[in-house]
Amino acid sequence: MIAVESLRGRRVVGRLERGDELHAGLLRACERFDIRTGFVRAIGACEAAEITQFEPETGGYRPPLRLEGFHELVSLNGNVSLRDGKPFLHLHALLAQITPEGSAAHGGHLISARVFALEFEIVAIDDHVLERNRNPATGLALWQQPG
Amino acid sequence: MIAVESLRGRRVVGRLERGDELHAGLLRACERFDIRTGFVRAIGACEAAEITQFEPETGGYRPPLRLEGFHELVSLNGNVSLRDGKPFLHLHALLAQITPEGSAAHGGHLISARVFALEFEIVAIDDHVLERNRNPATGLALWQQPG
Amino acid sequence: MIAVESLRGRRVVGRLERGDELHAGLLRACERFDIRTGFVRAIGACEAAEITQFEPETGGYRPPLRLEGFHELVSLNGNVSLRDGKPFLHLHALLAQITPEGSAAHGGHLISARVFALEFEIVAIDDHVLERNRNPATGLALWQQPG
Repeated sequence: MIAVESLRGRRVVGRLERGDELHAGLLRACERFDIRTGFVRAIGACEAAEITQFEPETGGYRPPLRLEGFHELVSLNGNVSLRDGKPFLHLHALLAQITPEGSAAHGGHLISARVFALEFEIVAIDDHVLERNRNPATGLALWQQPG
Repeated sequence: MIAVESLRGRRVVGRLERGDELHAGLLRACERFDIRTGFVRAIGACEAAEITQFEPETGGYRPPLRLEGFHELVSLNGNVSLRDGKPFLHLHALLAQITPEGSAAHGGHLISARVFALEFEIVAIDDHVLERNRNPATGLALWQQPG
Repeated sequence: MIAVESLRGRRVVGRLERGDELHAGLLRACERFDIRTGFVRAIGACEAAEITQFEPETGGYRPPLRLEGFHELVSLNGNVSLRDGKPFLHLHALLAQITPEGSAAHGGHLISARVFALEFEIVAIDDHVLERNRNPATGLALWQQPG
């Protein structure tokens, strides 16, 4: 386990605009408020999105499931940390549609999304900088113990 | 993008009672602790709920999907801000059932829910007041830049 | 309604290792940082998991749905509080797979999970201690008003 304590609770709240690319928009917010480590949460809706899952057997991600058209963003949960020295977003999303026949819900690792509306909160972890490095046990880039 | 920084981390934690109307119960907590802008998260279960999705083509919400009977509330994520001068909740929920045949998960914009149990956290954003106004690009009532 | 205000925003951030038992790992983090009441959030992936739902008619939980193999942990939301005098985790999870045929999402009350990767945040509520006791209206062990 890697675990550190944070005592300062700075947060940035806001929304992205229709047409914004979700990852780029949230990274812009991180840059504007100098957030290098933190947690991201949002609700809203997207007009297109791509989700996927990691595949331990191949050490890569599966071909993405492309969701076309309007979907509610039921939950967006993730974090920001440094990868190759730059702020990097790791985001998981649940996207859903409600139709006369019922509902469909698709969840996974969010690759990209075009925003319809997005109301977000980014909690800054200002007392530590978490960096991602290749983790041999999983093949993923995971946090290493801060120095 | 609209984004503001908050440096005060007041939060209210608690639970609603069986039979409570979810939105009314959380608004009561906001009122009791004077929260006009903030973020809401909860887990629990509901005995009835209605979810829907926005429909950009018509500018309204689709007919609700009514979920009868006991459902686990896998996630409740949302926020509180002012609409027409009053605290207004925007909530997204994922509701699920586990049956001998498998599981069913329904996610969307939460219209109403009757609480079986609800353990909640409301983070107050005390340094800003976010207000909703009609956003021409989407047809939704979205946050405007605080004055 | 039971509701208390918390003004201190201590949090612990970190990750569990591949092979860790999820509940035991998070309880270890709570113990290391002396967290008896708080909120837990995480994303990641699991290699096995069991979810279930409560059944009001019987006052117990349904036979678990056992999810074998790799699943993305789309969301993990929950809390820690005292039950029988010890830190107890109440966690809800959404687990998903993306396949060439589409996606599958399973949500519910998380009984157990074997971690592939888990990036977590635990918010400590240091100004109050919430304790669970049997709640006659539901048959669940729910928070009572702190003394």
